[in-house]
Amino acid sequence: MSVEQYIKKRAAAVNAALPRCIRSLRGADPRLAQAMVYTLAAGGKRLRPVLLGAAYEVFGGKAADVLPAACALEMVHTYSLVHDDLPAMDDDDLRRGRPTAHKVFGEAEAILAGDALLTDAFTILLSSRYPRRVTPSCVLAAARTLAARAGARGMVSGQAADLEAEGFLRGKINAAKRRRGLKLLSYIHLHKTADLITAAVEMGAVLAGAPERDVKALASFGRDIGLCFQVADDILDVVGDKKKLGKSGSDARNRKLTYASLLGVGEARNKAEALMRRALPALAGVRGKAAPKADLAALAEFIYRRDN
Amino acid sequence: MSVEQYIKKRAAAVNAALPRCIRSLRGADPRLAQAMVYTLAAGGKRLRPVLLGAAYEVFGGKAADVLPAACALEMVHTYSLVHDDLPAMDDDDLRRGRPTAHKVFGEAEAILAGDALLTDAFTILLSSRYPRRVTPSCVLAAARTLAARAGARGMVSGQAADLEAEGFLRGKINAAKRRRGLKLLSYIHLHKTADLITAAVEMGAVLAGAPERDVKALASFGRDIGLCFQVADDILDVVGDKKKLGKSGSDARNRKLTYASLLGVGEARNKAEALMRRALPALAGVRGKAAPKADLAALAEFIYRRDN
Repeated sequence: MSVEQYIKKRAAAVNAALPRCIRSLRGADPRLAQAMVYTLAAGGKRLRPVLLGAAYEVFGGKAADVLPAACALEMVHTYSLVHDDLPAMDDDDLRRGRPTAHKVFGEAEAILAGDALLTDAFTILLSSRYPRRVTPSCVLAAARTLAARAGARGMVSGQAADLEAEGFLRGKINAAKRRRGLKLLSYIHLHKTADLITAAVEMGAVLAGAPERDVKALASFGRDIGLCFQVADDILDVVGDKKKLGKSGSDARNRKLTYASLLGVGEARNKAEALMRRALPALAGVRGKAAPKADLAALAEFIYRRDN
Repeated sequence: MSVEQYIKKRAAAVNAALPRCIRSLRGADPRLAQAMVYTLAAGGKRLRPVLLGAAYEVFGGKAADVLPAACALEMVHTYSLVHDDLPAMDDDDLRRGRPTAHKVFGEAEAILAGDALLTDAFTILLSSRYPRRVTPSCVLAAARTLAARAGARGMVSGQAADLEAEGFLRGKINAAKRRRGLKLLSYIHLHKTADLITAAVEMGAVLAGAPERDVKALASFGRDIGLCFQVADDILDVVGDKKKLGKSGSDARNRKLTYASLLGVGEARNKAEALMRRALPALAGVRGKAAPKADLAALAEFIYRRDN
């Protein structure tokens, strides 16, 4: 089975479970629930939940055991996209080839749908049934990880710094400014993107009750493939096929600070490759099952060379 | 000690702890952290955290034991105000006498500050230390309650329904339309306001490991004082002193559906009193300490007759 087939198969389980998660929130305002389902149905590769399941399997068990946690993570990722697309933020009309939530449901409802996806990610994570080996302490640790990586120490600060960096590229760029830009960019990438990908593999590990040493090794792996993912994303925003990407390349339009804009596409490609290569030794050091470790390595490689 | 003095004293502990919560989120984007502290510092009566502490004390222990949980709840309440005030929502310029977050920090940063307050409410709730009697299962139950009451089954749906009800008052209001309005209004009040006040007393109870029977009785008490709170709020929006309220009475400007607009101020006052009276028997049935139960009854009375 190729990594693409593996992702497709694993993503199908997530795609089937996500609308069930929303339906389980009985009594929700119908239009709000519709907006939540709409944004979740937009698809995407479901890389984060797939990574979570694979990381869990490294320590025994089956990804299906922790499907609700995987869905919760995807709900947090989706909320972040809905809010990032808002007119006050990146102002994007298209996401994965479909009109963005605020285009379909209006701005207020899009803000609320994002809020509900974020909040109910915790409802789903905390209120679902898991096999006995996933103890209440494991669930608590997973929720702690999700909150910490998604909040002000993580993803939200990445988005804030990204917005604050707008206009950075105005005027002449000399060596000193480029150095400052690279420093800022590594903060943005670490938090905006890598933190939630780190959360994916960390959550999988803590749900399985993995020893701290292995949780840390997986977190290091997650950080590097997360950084690689964002560099690859920046390159695709410049050179990618807009149809395949299903979005409109707003980075260039907004003159966003990216490795591609700062160093050029060639240097950015080298950076992405270096990150992917750095990720693998941490993974190799994890004491766990060989097959899911190989799956994680294949996912890392996929993140590096994906074209959408 | 009067109930006003009691609230002031309890609120002071919350006010001191809230900025410490944000400072504990090390590595956060400085401007984002500043926006979070700004919105939390706007004050207010801190009724929800005070209720949480009192409910906890009904089952023994001291409110200070669960101060992080009380702060988490106030962070969720504050995020909801920040997002409700946004131009796409209620479009309010003032909150508690100060410019709203989006007026000071811009719309994008206000959205993100709200997102971070919501997410890190879970960080604070789940990562803080509690006395031994507050077990991991108690913390898990509290987080579950917070997420369920704040999400699409609760507060967010209340806000969504409130927005969707805009324009309801246009045209002539006959008996049938008034009945539909009252039904809609009870959904809005239940979720928009009562759910988070219910969460306050429920969280206090489950953190103390209270038996389910008593958690349910307290939840029923919380729902009724929460509904009473919102009816009182609607009346104040019409007849209240804008200076004392520190806001601009946007309900009337937006022609919002309220008991006051639908039934008149007199009927709304009767409704508020009936809700307050209905709340007390449920509280009386809880098996717990007398002094904190009396505190909760005094808080119910305060909610009914407050003038700001």
